[in-house]
Amino acid sequence: MAKLTSRKEDYSKWYNELVVKADLAENSGVRGCMVIKPYGFAIWEKMRDQLDKMFKETGHQNAYFPIFVPKSLFEAEEKNAEGFAKECAVVTHYRLKTDPNNSSKLIVDPEAKLEEELIVRPTSEAIIWNTYKNWIQSYRDLPILINQWANVVRWEMRTRLFLRTAEFLWQEGHTAHATKDEAIEETEKMLNVYADFVEGHMAVPVIKGLKTPSERFAGADETYCIEAMMQDGKALQAGTSHFLGQNFAKAFDVKFTNKEGKIEHAWATSWGVSTRLMGALIMAHSDDFGLVLPPLLAPIQVVIVPIFKGEEQLKQIASVALEIQNKLKAKGISVKFDDDDQNKPGWKFAEYELKGVPIRMAMGARDLENNTVEVARRDTLSKETVSLENIDLYIEELLEKIQKEIFFKALNFRAENITKVDTYDDFKEVLEKKGGFIAAHWDGTEEEEEQIKEETKATIRCIPLDGELEEGVSLISGKPSKQRVIFAKAY
Amino acid sequence: MAKLTSRKEDYSKWYNELVVKADLAENSGVRGCMVIKPYGFAIWEKMRDQLDKMFKETGHQNAYFPIFVPKSLFEAEEKNAEGFAKECAVVTHYRLKTDPNNSSKLIVDPEAKLEEELIVRPTSEAIIWNTYKNWIQSYRDLPILINQWANVVRWEMRTRLFLRTAEFLWQEGHTAHATKDEAIEETEKMLNVYADFVEGHMAVPVIKGLKTPSERFAGADETYCIEAMMQDGKALQAGTSHFLGQNFAKAFDVKFTNKEGKIEHAWATSWGVSTRLMGALIMAHSDDFGLVLPPLLAPIQVVIVPIFKGEEQLKQIASVALEIQNKLKAKGISVKFDDDDQNKPGWKFAEYELKGVPIRMAMGARDLENNTVEVARRDTLSKETVSLENIDLYIEELLEKIQKEIFFKALNFRAENITKVDTYDDFKEVLEKKGGFIAAHWDGTEEEEEQIKEETKATIRCIPLDGELEEGVSLISGKPSKQRVIFAKAY
Repeated sequence: MAKLTSRKEDYSKWYNELVVKADLAENSGVRGCMVIKPYGFAIWEKMRDQLDKMFKETGHQNAYFPIFVPKSLFEAEEKNAEGFAKECAVVTHYRLKTDPNNSSKLIVDPEAKLEEELIVRPTSEAIIWNTYKNWIQSYRDLPILINQWANVVRWEMRTRLFLRTAEFLWQEGHTAHATKDEAIEETEKMLNVYADFVEGHMAVPVIKGLKTPSERFAGADETYCIEAMMQDGKALQAGTSHFLGQNFAKAFDVKFTNKEGKIEHAWATSWGVSTRLMGALIMAHSDDFGLVLPPLLAPIQVVIVPIFKGEEQLKQIASVALEIQNKLKAKGISVKFDDDDQNKPGWKFAEYELKGVPIRMAMGARDLENNTVEVARRDTLSKETVSLENIDLYIEELLEKIQKEIFFKALNFRAENITKVDTYDDFKEVLEKKGGFIAAHWDGTEEEEEQIKEETKATIRCIPLDGELEEGVSLISGKPSKQRVIFAKAY
Repeated sequence: MAKLTSRKEDYSKWYNELVVKADLAENSGVRGCMVIKPYGFAIWEKMRDQLDKMFKETGHQNAYFPIFVPKSLFEAEEKNAEGFAKECAVVTHYRLKTDPNNSSKLIVDPEAKLEEELIVRPTSEAIIWNTYKNWIQSYRDLPILINQWANVVRWEMRTRLFLRTAEFLWQEGHTAHATKDEAIEETEKMLNVYADFVEGHMAVPVIKGLKTPSERFAGADETYCIEAMMQDGKALQAGTSHFLGQNFAKAFDVKFTNKEGKIEHAWATSWGVSTRLMGALIMAHSDDFGLVLPPLLAPIQVVIVPIFKGEEQLKQIASVALEIQNKLKAKGISVKFDDDDQNKPGWKFAEYELKGVPIRMAMGARDLENNTVEVARRDTLSKETVSLENIDLYIEELLEKIQKEIFFKALNFRAENITKVDTYDDFKEVLEKKGGFIAAHWDGTEEEEEQIKEETKATIRCIPLDGELEEGVSLISGKPSKQRVIFAKAY
């Protein structure tokens, strides 16, 4: 196994190599679309199942809506349509036929042209609100709290595995409410669900905030987001929750009779996270040896590697290892005993480091004698020999400890890499020399935001929701500001 | 709530109404595509989760492959391409732009034409085998046992909710093997997994068999299937498992070095079930009052309806009901206590009958006094008053009993509706007057099969795998035959 490029050498190359070598994903024969390989998909499944549980606990139900959006529906909400029009895959025909010039080839049958083109959904507000129209007549029909797990397509020009792909997997919640307040409450509730998941399960700290108007979702009145810091100091938007006002209700004529008997338009939210989270997970914790996975999302939490000479010794080790395995399984811990005799222990150690298995237990002849096992942590790469007595409790606690420590490591890293600056010169210097997030004052105008972006490539990631109020003057215009916002270069 | 059309009156109309009224699915704004509503999706989720568990228990892993298949890959396996070419949604462009004649409209941007058209996957053999090419070099890389849960699109002309839709949800297993025997073993293993699931969870008996060559999956050497009988006597193909030989390995040049050091093409299988199973589930068991769901797939297994006058009585009933609910939940039974005061008990009874909740418990003032509850079975519509003592055990056993009895009811119905016939005249008469499945001798030729299909609309559903051998002569040609095959009209 060739070594990974180091992060220091080339962070971007390190990421690309890691994704492929750890068997997470690879590019496919279709431009910009990825294949998510079984090991990568197993991590995604864990993320999905946990999120699904949290959505259901907050009262949401799953449903499924068509992948296609007829053009006339797509264009109904003008801002949304404008926002996505430039990156749409468009179905224009519904049949192929044999090429008259080459009977082993197919061509698009010109006689099978659709009367109306179909857009492969880049997001589903249009098709869903066109459906909600028939479901909502009275306030009694509200709220509607629906989520969908689906694939979506956005024709991105430059793509990167997990971070930006033409097709990606995601969930999209779409809710309808009788009042503005209730819709805003839902928007904020789901932002908190995302933050709890990303911090609690992915062990990635996030800043909750509002997007500036120029960075809002097309068609939203307000976009809430969670922003995470990667190890190169760049920001990654890990999830968004949109308050859509009555924009889609108006575009699709979704009205209801309220408690007072008056007719009004419904209020909407939508919120989503995608396989992009895989990119965040990988980039936040991993090192030059490979993946580092938080135990709560690791498909294999513990691997047991026997160190043996000959079949007899393997048998003896196996009998102890299987006992340990059963004890751990009884505690809901996923354990693999790797008794493959094709590969040497050293090869296996490197393999499980690459794959990010949180705990590796190695057991040899001396361990058998002493009733011990060597336990290695993937995150710290530290090792210790521990007694087999109560090994299940030991491992259970260690997994919890690792989960917490990975989070705190990322939290400390972030704290060290958020810098407060008060002048534009300092801003540029910090951005260039130190990188990371910059907390600075902004005058609230699109002009200043745009100028900074053009000159430095840093964007306003968010206006923090729980940022302290502090009087100041903005970087360029020098106008008064009441709160620092977060600037960073971003994925 | 208007009554359903009865099955006797119009079976097809009954089905269509039931799907919509029971909130399972509805037609969308996109031709041929359905919206799966939350209640319908909750049933599908239960089916999916159980199947997923069975796939994993038999050694399969999930992965995800692109939704698009470039035309050049699509046409590589000629028979497969030919089989699906006439029903393909084709993406030809990747951008929309503002209509120069109407700024609120969008048109397809003619400058954003794809160099190569992309087919929205009708099935994924092509894109997957193009990927496997890079994964398979040695026999050590085999077997590959992968499944994918995905949406697929087949541009069907006549569509019906769940049974035949332009887009549907399914799983598709795609495996690669070093030997022919191993691939055939896998094909049969997955057929058995399907049969176990459909009989054990859906409570629908199936006949396992082989398709005739003319009914095979395009690109397969052999197609195995399970066929179920609906209440109108028609057949529904509930799942298929294909032995693909080396067809795709040859089309995509997937070779490996075998144990003997020789290079050969890999052997393939693919197998799938879809949201069509929802149609089978609905049609196999339901009645003129609505859905009948087997307990193992019911999103709500038990509903408790209080019969009360005034808040005080509701409170008293609620306290007992919640106790029952907790006891049942502790046993993993899903229970809803419906204390809504907007709808009368009679309305609720009809609603839960429509939705197919297996057990309804009704509790009134007299039940409180007597420490009893009225228990109604959805499948038999029978009621009895039972003591609250050990009610959890009673309900647990009743759910198991219902699951079994629904299956045996369907099994008996099928037994009564399979008829052996030995002449073509009898065949036509039975088909017209009695319907159901017909077991008859066939000469093994496409000609006879085709003639029967054209003259009677009955097709050979399968050549049963465990059918007894029996000498006979075929219906039309009078040629010798060694086994009866199953004919029926089919969905």
